[in-house]
Amino acid sequence: MNAIVRHTGADALVAATTNLGIDVCFANPGTTELALVKALDAAPATRAVLCLFEGVCTGAADGFGRMAKRPALTLTHLGPGFANGIANLHNARRAHSPIINLIGDHASWHSAYDPPLRSDIDALARTVGWVGRSSSPGSLAADVEEAWCAAMGTPRGVATLVVPSDFQSALVNEHSHPTPDLPRTPVSCADIAGAARIVEDPEATILLIGGDALCPEGQILAASIAAKGQHTRVMIEMFPARIERGAGIPPLGRLPYFPEQALAALGGARIILAGARAPVSYFGYEGIPSELAPANSIHTLVPEGGDVLEALRALANAVNAECGALSVSRTPRQDRKLHENDPLEPASIARLLADALPEGAIVVTEGSSCSIGFFDAAAAVVPHTILTNTGGAIGLGPPCAVGAALACPDRPVINLQSDGSALYTLQALWTQARERLNVVTLIVSNRRYGILQMELRRAGMNELTEGALGLTELSRPDIDWVALARGLGVEATRVRTCRELADTLGTVLRSAGPRLVEMVC
Amino acid sequence: MNAIVRHTGADALVAATTNLGIDVCFANPGTTELALVKALDAAPATRAVLCLFEGVCTGAADGFGRMAKRPALTLTHLGPGFANGIANLHNARRAHSPIINLIGDHASWHSAYDPPLRSDIDALARTVGWVGRSSSPGSLAADVEEAWCAAMGTPRGVATLVVPSDFQSALVNEHSHPTPDLPRTPVSCADIAGAARIVEDPEATILLIGGDALCPEGQILAASIAAKGQHTRVMIEMFPARIERGAGIPPLGRLPYFPEQALAALGGARIILAGARAPVSYFGYEGIPSELAPANSIHTLVPEGGDVLEALRALANAVNAECGALSVSRTPRQDRKLHENDPLEPASIARLLADALPEGAIVVTEGSSCSIGFFDAAAAVVPHTILTNTGGAIGLGPPCAVGAALACPDRPVINLQSDGSALYTLQALWTQARERLNVVTLIVSNRRYGILQMELRRAGMNELTEGALGLTELSRPDIDWVALARGLGVEATRVRTCRELADTLGTVLRSAGPRLVEMVC
Repeated sequence: MNAIVRHTGADALVAATTNLGIDVCFANPGTTELALVKALDAAPATRAVLCLFEGVCTGAADGFGRMAKRPALTLTHLGPGFANGIANLHNARRAHSPIINLIGDHASWHSAYDPPLRSDIDALARTVGWVGRSSSPGSLAADVEEAWCAAMGTPRGVATLVVPSDFQSALVNEHSHPTPDLPRTPVSCADIAGAARIVEDPEATILLIGGDALCPEGQILAASIAAKGQHTRVMIEMFPARIERGAGIPPLGRLPYFPEQALAALGGARIILAGARAPVSYFGYEGIPSELAPANSIHTLVPEGGDVLEALRALANAVNAECGALSVSRTPRQDRKLHENDPLEPASIARLLADALPEGAIVVTEGSSCSIGFFDAAAAVVPHTILTNTGGAIGLGPPCAVGAALACPDRPVINLQSDGSALYTLQALWTQARERLNVVTLIVSNRRYGILQMELRRAGMNELTEGALGLTELSRPDIDWVALARGLGVEATRVRTCRELADTLGTVLRSAGPRLVEMVC
Repeated sequence: MNAIVRHTGADALVAATTNLGIDVCFANPGTTELALVKALDAAPATRAVLCLFEGVCTGAADGFGRMAKRPALTLTHLGPGFANGIANLHNARRAHSPIINLIGDHASWHSAYDPPLRSDIDALARTVGWVGRSSSPGSLAADVEEAWCAAMGTPRGVATLVVPSDFQSALVNEHSHPTPDLPRTPVSCADIAGAARIVEDPEATILLIGGDALCPEGQILAASIAAKGQHTRVMIEMFPARIERGAGIPPLGRLPYFPEQALAALGGARIILAGARAPVSYFGYEGIPSELAPANSIHTLVPEGGDVLEALRALANAVNAECGALSVSRTPRQDRKLHENDPLEPASIARLLADALPEGAIVVTEGSSCSIGFFDAAAAVVPHTILTNTGGAIGLGPPCAVGAALACPDRPVINLQSDGSALYTLQALWTQARERLNVVTLIVSNRRYGILQMELRRAGMNELTEGALGLTELSRPDIDWVALARGLGVEATRVRTCRELADTLGTVLRSAGPRLVEMVC
């Protein structure tokens, strides 16, 4: 007869996550998560990474999920702690990043007395995805497996498990579970055949690709399919969660942000959706339709979360596309010479970074000022990966870089980051230092919320008033990013000219450990 | 015939808030709030204060509401922006602070298309209080009046109004509204008479006071009432939203944080609740009851949100208490001499600050390390006000100090602040600099989450393991608070000994504008 081994509910939960291949936990725990802290301490297979703010935990889990294509854990404290992580979970939801949030709750018998920290955790968590709540100490392992199925399901997403503190610390029997199977959605032959007819038809068509189609194979397949059509072009969704770019990959164009430009780019063409959602204006503007393409002009190749790569392979086959023979045309390089003493501006920053980019770099871009320019400028340089802000909740960049660096420790990570957004989650710099991550943060320090000033001008305020400047300028006093980085343990430098940036990039991109460069412009 | 004057829905809303006496807006707007930004720009009666993170907006509104006893506005961007403010709204909800949150939503016709930034704003906002949503451009003025009634109602609290962007910018007729009346809850004669019988009875009784009873008059009334009882003592609730302390006010004891100590302090006595809630353990611990006093031992003098001061006056009258003749007994001063070169520790910090306290100071305390010690040490010094963290969501202190300083520009504000908590909302320092606020931030830099280490020891981990230290120490690298403050535009100094702190307090408490002192201990 075997002896029954007993351990805590928290130990059982962590054993189950290890069994599921989970090996990172971004943690900012409190008193109701201490049994999970002890269980993580006893489980060296999981790397527990302390973050000093919950938005860093969740943004890091998003970056990790995008690169590893499997979930990390987050560990946050009750409703208010979790609430601090919602903004970046919103981005993760839009990115279809797999994430499992663990939240300790009050002891199951204690909540009814409404202690100070009690709030409606479930209501908060439901706004970003699946929510489960453990109902007994013995269920914790099965509960986290269910959360994993939700996170890795079709489509992938954010799953939150709420675990009362008494269930974490109660003793339960040790047992093992087989890894759950994930259902797969088969590709629909009718959808493929319909798309093939549209591609072969003489009408203008756009193959709008997104999600998992943005790997090298997906982009090459899409370009090859378009080459077989008479008037078919490929376009990339507005804010990709992750896209592979650079040498060997066709330099495809991206759907513009402002709806007037997006409408012009789409030009009334029919649209085949391959991993992308139907294009919608980012905000609602008077006189501009919400739907950038009418519903009856759209054909969906594969439903959300379906296997888009398999569908593109089937479509390429249906139209006899020749992927091997694809000639990758390059965007012409801008030839305007950068003068060494020129002050920095978005275009020069984009170009200098593209020129200095190390092979295999992961570039997390946030903010309007330089990101689009860099996307275009780097189309033809060394192969690299770009992660963008999918949901518009700002403060993604610095934590997302943390997660990407932990998922891919052998690749350089660059965070091309606007200053306004970085201030929401600057605490991520400390985690970069603590974990000695290979992240270079490039702060575009233009000392304003540039997008808001642009929108105020679009709304007719040609001369920004003092009040409008007061609410959109990050000055009086200026933010000193070199001091902030040093305060959080990251070496930092300030640059103002093209020459200074080029020289500094040459150094920092070859250095180990985190660095920050404030690019005043 | 009068000409009908037309202005935007946002203008009408801001005119209504001005009519209600609202004159401050803590703002971190986005594209869907720009019509409100323009309306604020055109309404100089409202001071628009830019905050670089939404948790600063809401924490500042909490501090403002506690001191001014009327609401400030917050202005945040859609669901993810608002979500960043929830933690401090949780504290505000527990403090019964009046606050009106304005959130711009997508244009009313645009949300259905699920643009990237859409999420369930109403579900998020419902977790912290009243929620309204404007249903037409013409309703904005009336909607914000309804929000004001909710914020200033019985009890006061957090009210959130969601305003679609198209309603903000639509033209509406100008018109004025009378200020709404607020209903008042009369004091119950039966409740007063019942309390009087308990006070006069020989059984041990505690008059547990909180909320609006913590003004000087309320505390003097409570002490006078207790003096008429045979075995009646007064005790202050665990985490007061606001309490007046110092010379002329009885130095009353406070309900301890840890439940074992709280149970001992209550000693099985009957309890009369006067503005305080029934005492409940902060967290649930095995073998300790959630209710620190059984329900049948509790008498409620006045229901939540009722006029507790009026009730205490009636009770004093019923027991013939003589408030004029109250002799205020003082807690004996600790006489252990502080040596100049002693390193700093919580007790010495508390005493040095109490000794240096300027008259009329508002002291925002957050964190376990020094706050309780200061509360006791300063009982007999100059009159001052203390604001504590009512809900346990950390990151309250720096923004709360912003709000208190704006509500009371002639009073010095001191933020006695633990380092771990301060990192959640350090962006508040920039707003202190931008608005030239008279705030001195004293960072207790012990470089750890002290409360978690204490709870781990309570849970049996006598020697903290490396993993446990990794998740509870704010070191490797150390946070450099002097650099962080300078990065955000605030002058800062680091001190390590009693002499250095005493000298520095002598300087910074007499200086204009914000300062930060890192107290390494």
